[in-house]
Amino acid sequence: MDDRPIGVFDSGIGGLSCVAPLKKLLPGEKILFFGDTARVPYGSKSDATIISYSLQIADYLAGQGAKALVIACNTISAVAIGAIRGAYPDIPVVGIVEPAARRTAELLRGGKKAGLIATRATVNNGAYRKAVKALLPGSELPAMACPLFVPIVEEGLADSDIARLTASHYLDVFVRDNGLDTLVLGCTHYPFLADTLRSVFPELDLVDPAECLAEEAARVLDEKDLLAEPGANADKPDVFYASAISGAFTETVDAVTGGADYDILQHHF
Amino acid sequence: MDDRPIGVFDSGIGGLSCVAPLKKLLPGEKILFFGDTARVPYGSKSDATIISYSLQIADYLAGQGAKALVIACNTISAVAIGAIRGAYPDIPVVGIVEPAARRTAELLRGGKKAGLIATRATVNNGAYRKAVKALLPGSELPAMACPLFVPIVEEGLADSDIARLTASHYLDVFVRDNGLDTLVLGCTHYPFLADTLRSVFPELDLVDPAECLAEEAARVLDEKDLLAEPGANADKPDVFYASAISGAFTETVDAVTGGADYDILQHHF
Repeated sequence: MDDRPIGVFDSGIGGLSCVAPLKKLLPGEKILFFGDTARVPYGSKSDATIISYSLQIADYLAGQGAKALVIACNTISAVAIGAIRGAYPDIPVVGIVEPAARRTAELLRGGKKAGLIATRATVNNGAYRKAVKALLPGSELPAMACPLFVPIVEEGLADSDIARLTASHYLDVFVRDNGLDTLVLGCTHYPFLADTLRSVFPELDLVDPAECLAEEAARVLDEKDLLAEPGANADKPDVFYASAISGAFTETVDAVTGGADYDILQHHF
Repeated sequence: MDDRPIGVFDSGIGGLSCVAPLKKLLPGEKILFFGDTARVPYGSKSDATIISYSLQIADYLAGQGAKALVIACNTISAVAIGAIRGAYPDIPVVGIVEPAARRTAELLRGGKKAGLIATRATVNNGAYRKAVKALLPGSELPAMACPLFVPIVEEGLADSDIARLTASHYLDVFVRDNGLDTLVLGCTHYPFLADTLRSVFPELDLVDPAECLAEEAARVLDEKDLLAEPGANADKPDVFYASAISGAFTETVDAVTGGADYDILQHHF
């Protein structure tokens, strides 16, 4: 038993979509969330920059007493999880790529044809493909970078003709030439585009890695006997840090916390 | 006469579009360019964050011996020029908003109906409107934020159906309801969309502030007797710093330098 908080972080606000699945499976835990909204997006930055920024955030959350680090960001998980684990050997570090790759490998094993859509950094890094291949040697995971999807979501245009045209632009040929029946949403912003993707590609199944991440976090905390004592965090509000607080951040926090108490704080690196 | 370099800076690669106009009017000057590619975009960040980042860049360029600072970025000019002038009272600081506002006021005085398109930060800040109003009391400058334009340009989709649909989305009602005949391109990325804007709105004239900025820089250097001695910088290559070097940065530097020698260096804050 360990009543200290879980540190959850992302390059921006996308990772907030992982908070509800985490709270659902781990209702007794206090969450410290960090969104690096001043430096978002990470997806188009170099690996060295992503690692440097991610270690600053991990350091900050560890300094606030986090008992575990949950990376609610595909780009950071793909590029920097090794560096973070190396820097914090005594803290469990759960990334979103590994559990999502396990789910993808299961689907491929069952005969599905899955493709990955993600930011350019996640695609170029190849972490998903390598993780799936390690579980299922000889498997293929075609991948397509869709860099406009994040700004379209942040602009509130997820359900628009622009979003549908952009989905066709990135994915028509990709889906057809690879004969896909499943898309893995390899960026925490992309679940907000699920309805648009379903309307353009009604024949495709979608995989949301946020659910895989929450299951993995619950399993790791249980295995290491780090779950909080029931009720111990009942009167401790979750805390949401941003490197630059914006209207979109506070509105999204409010939406994902579902009426529970919370604090919002700004920390500038 | 002063042979030291001119410091030119931007939040990313957009400001590189100001290098050619500057070199055309000031062929004897050596340029130190800084693009904060690791932290781009600034347009959706808070004023405090933009000021803090801009002062870091100004400090770096002043430390490298810049005799003048040219802000090739509308967001930084709109939000941070006062803070930069306050920090460097002995160095001329030329922003892009003031000379573009003078050109806009001339057009309005001549009976044109102009509107501004820019990032959210530039629009919310109101610097263009205030600068034009100071020159032409009672004038109006309707403004529209077009946040998807920058990622569309950075994605290489400036000439695409997505760009044309996005231009219609942002501007159809704005142009019609305000009866506009002129658009001021209040973001250094937007000149790359000029052909697309002309195809969607063939009746509109476009104002490119990069040309106004170069004229102002040449005027200020001449007035303060800071022009370089002819030939003194002939064998000194221009230097282009990025906080994160990317393929897009090196390709755009190569395109705007037109075959002249240059160096590219990375400096990480």
